[in-house]
Amino acid sequence: MSGQKAVAENMLWGGRFTQGLDPLMVQYNQSLPYDRILWSQDIAGSIAFARANSKTGIITQHEFSEIERGFKQITEEWRTNTFVVKENDEDIHTANERRLSEIIGKEIGGKLHTGRSRNEQIATDMRLWLRDELRKLDGYLSDLIKVAIARSEKEIDYIMPGYTHLQKAQPVRWSHWLLSHATAFASELGRLREVTKRVNRSPLGTGALAGNPFHIDREAMAKELGFEGLLYNSMNAVGDRDFAMETMQWGSSFMLKISRWAEDLIIYSSLEFGFVRLADAYSTGSSLMPQKKNADSLELLRGKAGRAFGHMAGLMMTIKGLPTTYNKDLQESVEPLLDHIKTVGDSIQIATGVLSTLTTIPEKMVAALAPEMLATEFADYLVRKGVPFREGHHISGRVVALAENNNVPMDTLTLEQLKGIDARFDEDVMACLDYDRAVELKDAIGGCSKRAVREQIDVLKGLI
Amino acid sequence: MSGQKAVAENMLWGGRFTQGLDPLMVQYNQSLPYDRILWSQDIAGSIAFARANSKTGIITQHEFSEIERGFKQITEEWRTNTFVVKENDEDIHTANERRLSEIIGKEIGGKLHTGRSRNEQIATDMRLWLRDELRKLDGYLSDLIKVAIARSEKEIDYIMPGYTHLQKAQPVRWSHWLLSHATAFASELGRLREVTKRVNRSPLGTGALAGNPFHIDREAMAKELGFEGLLYNSMNAVGDRDFAMETMQWGSSFMLKISRWAEDLIIYSSLEFGFVRLADAYSTGSSLMPQKKNADSLELLRGKAGRAFGHMAGLMMTIKGLPTTYNKDLQESVEPLLDHIKTVGDSIQIATGVLSTLTTIPEKMVAALAPEMLATEFADYLVRKGVPFREGHHISGRVVALAENNNVPMDTLTLEQLKGIDARFDEDVMACLDYDRAVELKDAIGGCSKRAVREQIDVLKGLI
Amino acid sequence: MSGQKAVAENMLWGGRFTQGLDPLMVQYNQSLPYDRILWSQDIAGSIAFARANSKTGIITQHEFSEIERGFKQITEEWRTNTFVVKENDEDIHTANERRLSEIIGKEIGGKLHTGRSRNEQIATDMRLWLRDELRKLDGYLSDLIKVAIARSEKEIDYIMPGYTHLQKAQPVRWSHWLLSHATAFASELGRLREVTKRVNRSPLGTGALAGNPFHIDREAMAKELGFEGLLYNSMNAVGDRDFAMETMQWGSSFMLKISRWAEDLIIYSSLEFGFVRLADAYSTGSSLMPQKKNADSLELLRGKAGRAFGHMAGLMMTIKGLPTTYNKDLQESVEPLLDHIKTVGDSIQIATGVLSTLTTIPEKMVAALAPEMLATEFADYLVRKGVPFREGHHISGRVVALAENNNVPMDTLTLEQLKGIDARFDEDVMACLDYDRAVELKDAIGGCSKRAVREQIDVLKGLI
Amino acid sequence: MSGQKAVAENMLWGGRFTQGLDPLMVQYNQSLPYDRILWSQDIAGSIAFARANSKTGIITQHEFSEIERGFKQITEEWRTNTFVVKENDEDIHTANERRLSEIIGKEIGGKLHTGRSRNEQIATDMRLWLRDELRKLDGYLSDLIKVAIARSEKEIDYIMPGYTHLQKAQPVRWSHWLLSHATAFASELGRLREVTKRVNRSPLGTGALAGNPFHIDREAMAKELGFEGLLYNSMNAVGDRDFAMETMQWGSSFMLKISRWAEDLIIYSSLEFGFVRLADAYSTGSSLMPQKKNADSLELLRGKAGRAFGHMAGLMMTIKGLPTTYNKDLQESVEPLLDHIKTVGDSIQIATGVLSTLTTIPEKMVAALAPEMLATEFADYLVRKGVPFREGHHISGRVVALAENNNVPMDTLTLEQLKGIDARFDEDVMACLDYDRAVELKDAIGGCSKRAVREQIDVLKGLI
Repeated sequence: MSGQKAVAENMLWGGRFTQGLDPLMVQYNQSLPYDRILWSQDIAGSIAFARANSKTGIITQHEFSEIERGFKQITEEWRTNTFVVKENDEDIHTANERRLSEIIGKEIGGKLHTGRSRNEQIATDMRLWLRDELRKLDGYLSDLIKVAIARSEKEIDYIMPGYTHLQKAQPVRWSHWLLSHATAFASELGRLREVTKRVNRSPLGTGALAGNPFHIDREAMAKELGFEGLLYNSMNAVGDRDFAMETMQWGSSFMLKISRWAEDLIIYSSLEFGFVRLADAYSTGSSLMPQKKNADSLELLRGKAGRAFGHMAGLMMTIKGLPTTYNKDLQESVEPLLDHIKTVGDSIQIATGVLSTLTTIPEKMVAALAPEMLATEFADYLVRKGVPFREGHHISGRVVALAENNNVPMDTLTLEQLKGIDARFDEDVMACLDYDRAVELKDAIGGCSKRAVREQIDVLKGLI
Repeated sequence: MSGQKAVAENMLWGGRFTQGLDPLMVQYNQSLPYDRILWSQDIAGSIAFARANSKTGIITQHEFSEIERGFKQITEEWRTNTFVVKENDEDIHTANERRLSEIIGKEIGGKLHTGRSRNEQIATDMRLWLRDELRKLDGYLSDLIKVAIARSEKEIDYIMPGYTHLQKAQPVRWSHWLLSHATAFASELGRLREVTKRVNRSPLGTGALAGNPFHIDREAMAKELGFEGLLYNSMNAVGDRDFAMETMQWGSSFMLKISRWAEDLIIYSSLEFGFVRLADAYSTGSSLMPQKKNADSLELLRGKAGRAFGHMAGLMMTIKGLPTTYNKDLQESVEPLLDHIKTVGDSIQIATGVLSTLTTIPEKMVAALAPEMLATEFADYLVRKGVPFREGHHISGRVVALAENNNVPMDTLTLEQLKGIDARFDEDVMACLDYDRAVELKDAIGGCSKRAVREQIDVLKGLI
Repeated sequence: MSGQKAVAENMLWGGRFTQGLDPLMVQYNQSLPYDRILWSQDIAGSIAFARANSKTGIITQHEFSEIERGFKQITEEWRTNTFVVKENDEDIHTANERRLSEIIGKEIGGKLHTGRSRNEQIATDMRLWLRDELRKLDGYLSDLIKVAIARSEKEIDYIMPGYTHLQKAQPVRWSHWLLSHATAFASELGRLREVTKRVNRSPLGTGALAGNPFHIDREAMAKELGFEGLLYNSMNAVGDRDFAMETMQWGSSFMLKISRWAEDLIIYSSLEFGFVRLADAYSTGSSLMPQKKNADSLELLRGKAGRAFGHMAGLMMTIKGLPTTYNKDLQESVEPLLDHIKTVGDSIQIATGVLSTLTTIPEKMVAALAPEMLATEFADYLVRKGVPFREGHHISGRVVALAENNNVPMDTLTLEQLKGIDARFDEDVMACLDYDRAVELKDAIGGCSKRAVREQIDVLKGLI
Repeated sequence: MSGQKAVAENMLWGGRFTQGLDPLMVQYNQSLPYDRILWSQDIAGSIAFARANSKTGIITQHEFSEIERGFKQITEEWRTNTFVVKENDEDIHTANERRLSEIIGKEIGGKLHTGRSRNEQIATDMRLWLRDELRKLDGYLSDLIKVAIARSEKEIDYIMPGYTHLQKAQPVRWSHWLLSHATAFASELGRLREVTKRVNRSPLGTGALAGNPFHIDREAMAKELGFEGLLYNSMNAVGDRDFAMETMQWGSSFMLKISRWAEDLIIYSSLEFGFVRLADAYSTGSSLMPQKKNADSLELLRGKAGRAFGHMAGLMMTIKGLPTTYNKDLQESVEPLLDHIKTVGDSIQIATGVLSTLTTIPEKMVAALAPEMLATEFADYLVRKGVPFREGHHISGRVVALAENNNVPMDTLTLEQLKGIDARFDEDVMACLDYDRAVELKDAIGGCSKRAVREQIDVLKGLI
């Protein structure tokens, strides 16, 4: 915005200068190419500001009407993609105000910015925009959870191997796996709502740093713009980018969860596991190998966890150690935020698409169950007979070893063989080899019995 | 925990092996050196678990009493630093249970772990410990805000230059600066309380991954341990480290704020600014330059923003892309969390010490005020006479330029000179040169007038 | 690339589907919007590949000529911005090959991809592009260092306060400060050249993962494309994104240095310091405060250190834990790399512009010197008389204290007063108060004497 | 180091003060608990410094001898763990010098620090220590690569499925997979050696910031200490922590590679894949499930990629935006560096242990091969007959589809069926179903034929 003067004659560097301007610096500095996305928020904020100034008499009612009229036209121009950007339109604020004065004249247009600073303006615009975006994400995320719930209900009878350390551990319901991720997503949904509240607070009316000198009614403006409260210190209001950073902390936390969900499904859709098959819409083939069907959607979801994290990590570094109030460094919060919101929003929707079109192959899940996964059942069996768990654990370990040494599946061991290991094994021990029974026994809250799974579904439904 | 067997004879690598064990692997794997800090939480969790098992009859009341008796003794041993770690005590759970069986015998001691997994146990221990630590941080942070409030009240009359872009912008109250940071801290305090709620939920009773098969009363255990709710899916409960990650996101967000606060004070305590002087307790000298007094405390505070961020960034990467439930990777959440909590807790307390012992030098603040900082007042003066702000801004720019060109301070310009720039300047324009008036005019909510500052103080008091 | 089939009727989710396609997934997956920047590298790689295939007879010389002819036309289309993207042009490889077949017919065009995979193709394109970009950065960075050297030579006589902990420490030459940063930049230049070498290695001819089955001459292709060597394992060649990640590690390391340089200049251009003044071309004003001149260029430079770091941190997370060879996650390396290179390249050039147009104000530098900065000289004086340094340090501390207690500048102390502190002070001690002498005494290699500074300049000149 | 004075009476905060000291600040500030690891480097640097000062006559030969004698004794005390730390021993420099004066008296001991600063001293100590550690890592890493090579040679005949996107792609040699990682490790080895060179440069003799005033011979000191060159600007020398940061960039890059290697082996050791079995020494069992054998070592390796990244990310943030020369923030480089080096060093050794004791199960590898992986062979077959690749790719896609639709393995299709798809299939097409042939055909440099694998081995041997 500065009047540019001629650069010293004896420049050390044969640079890019034309008439005292470095064209690269102009481009390095300008934000309009990306902050134009905020045009409607910028206009809404300006109207609210002008209205408030008209209430205190700093501008007249007529002047306000003119301003409002001008912005109606500008709105139309943005909407119809006919707004013409001019050379000095460094940012959205400058562009909108410049155009306003063209429409309603400089005399009134020049009053718009009375007592206002671009510092408060950009913070207002970003918060308004972000609040609305976060509400969209809220909706997308609720949809994803609903799809997980719907599948859980429909496919509650499928039993699959539950893994720890990627090793077969105990049988669980497929729905239990689905809900393990849906539960994590629901926790993020709760957190998202808290973040949204902190985002949705108004900096408007705080000036460049010291406050507004014209008795502007900040609460009225906040109400008009749908803010849920005020930021209470002007220096903080203009220099804070927590709303962007906390959003990205949330977004990258959420994307980590997506990355784990995607990892599971990538593994489950490998030929070796084969529990699920992705819809064609979410897979792609190979330019070299005709037989390939790759889970590109899931890999992109997993990979974009990095991208979302990068946005956050970058902004945190940008903010670190900055002096008080506004510094131009903070402009670096805008582009990453825009990409972050797009990345997270698209990813939730893609995940929803993947999950809702996924083909499950329950017979492959069952085929993957291995008798060794029931070893704990033998220990629990003994526990119910009063054997200390540690001893039971040791004995069932010997059952596993016997099968291994004889090179036979554990479920082909005879009662005699079992009794040979420990005399306390009775005929009813054979029930331990029933996968369904093992699953149904996990009936405490949070377990994988049908009842416990249904209970989880109810809890989740209550959260969204 | 595995029985170690002999390693193949023809090893490709002349290794470290002794009796089938790689001593480096033993050390690489074991967590006791750091998770021993969780000893009391581990014992509390074990007692709650045993009590619950006694209620359902899986163990007898007598067995429970014995277990409780054993843990009383173990508690005493830890308290008096007489607990003897043995070679195979890989982690705190193993150590405590091993010792329990020594005290009360294997028959009963071996029943402690009935239906339980170390997966749920470590999650329970960490959450209990973390919840208590977060409550301590809550107290420390409240103290810091209180000190800022107290200074704000006491030193409300000090006027200093307010900066944007580290350039003198407009005069503000020193208290306004103090509150700009205190407001940011208070926002973090609110967030901390939300994090604490999510941390304080119980995984106990979820088993290794599939749930508990002995009808354990998870709600009773949660109540006994002071948890505010349950985690509702067993696979999620054992594989989730969000409580650690979200804590670190919070902690690193908070430390960013501390880094900005420290940066300001480092600059303000430079000889060039000189607004404040650190207490000797928080400064150090130079081994080479006897005149130096360095703000080491503030620099460490600023530097540790990086350390806190590193903990978070590291854990996020560790978590990314992990398969379902528990994987040993998650052990890497413990040490960073311990150091993170210590770093943040110490830092808040150091900041409180620095702020409460700081010497302010109001005469240096006043001396740093420059008439150019009042340029906006001339524009606002004209605005009040009906001049469009943009025109007023332009005219006051010419006032600044006149002083600059004449190489005199702006406040030595005469009324005639001002009138020469614009005829609308009247005698009352000279009031624009009063710093106090400029400050008091910023009276809208969030501004730096005395009234507005006091209002902020009231708001803050309501938050802590 | 997959043939898309209809999605199951009973979808759980009322989605975006049209004819079995999710339009959002199409957009989520496609890379052409950004990888089109690689068009010329993609063509060069294809020509080299076809030529090599013609040498082994897999395609005929005529077919190769046709392919070359087709690509000449495509090159022209890209150059003149007349290349028409079609709906299924998912990436630059697809687009170029599709167009080739349109021009020369499917019979020959369909032979281009013989034995080739997009996996090796994208790696080849990116490495070629990156190598050329890194060479540009090499040039920009050399320019920046040259400007620093030129200023160092021209302004070698300026003396300024040297700071540690942002406290005045010892007088140094302004040129010494300039060279402290230029030295750091030169170190990055050396590292850049090492990175470039690792980037500039050829993956072409490695297939999708297993290698090329048609005896392609990889060395000839590498030579044609200007690669300095081959990647020696096909699985590694297609799955590795180290070239992108190491570049970003370098770039973010470099930007950290820029952030420190910018921080210094922001502080030095504050009114309180006032050592330098930025050219108007690199500053901007305030929309509210007419007197402001903000160092926006420097703040953006400092802020973009975060952006560059975010690119790196994000990609590192994306890469972490990926399974062998190519996974679609790796597509997430492209956009960050493009933005990273632009960010770093622009930043170096902006820094060069700032530094070459900066106005230095040597009289402000001198005015900022304080006699206390000479305290070490008194200690050194005594050392030369045989006093142990620790004692000398203690005595000079008393000199400082005497001045402080008497509230006078240290350089107004009389010889008598000094002798009162220690009898070993003689008349020649007064020379200790000469700033130039203090600077010239730091004459060991790397010091700030004129000779030592010139020596540094010579070393630097040898490095670029 | 500062003399601590009494804190103002009317403190706002009822703090921790005792005699003007905040005990928490003392602990927050002191580095001895961790920098004591540098004791021998600190002594070596001091001896070199004193020797150099004796050469210029600043201290006498006798004084130097005394200093050397003192340090011999101190060395002995550290070695035998009898060095007694005193209360004011804030850091290793203070501790060593304090002890020296106790042994040889203050008169001579007080001369040690002549012209020296702790700023240069800590940089010297850290670089010396780090250089030696990096050389150890060099050795560990070479061992890891050697083990990979040895296995590659021994197990060169094993064929396994090669994967892209975790989907079966083409058959490859197990050795080819081994070498894909070994190649990546070797690239890191090359980079490590470059880093080591930049680390191994001497800051000694640069003073606090301005240089050394006593003509110290920096080159002689550097030579004595084994440095490979000097840092050429004193301000840069004391304020730079690139040596730590670049090391961590390298270390976290390396750990990313380890994370991918570990991910592969975790998947390959799952029961579903079953290609390898870890030695018991590197696995652990479950406290609940007796049948489990978890790849804890690999999971820790993968998880510690996060830890190593966190060190780097944290230090980068700490460094960002720091003002010139030394600031106390830089103390935050020490602890992360120590932990980083230990993490990386241990991890390489664990990886070596895992790899050298791994059991391969070649029959499981073969069993996992699927005829669909040969689809490309059909396309290549046609290519050799002059069919354009794109057409051949399409035809072989139809072969895959025919088998899929008939629900039979692709290798049970008859020649007639193949001819039904395309008449150009002749009898010799059946050779396409030979996995070994497919592998051997990938014979261009970098492919998986036996020849090409052996070539890779030779290249690798040349690098280590």
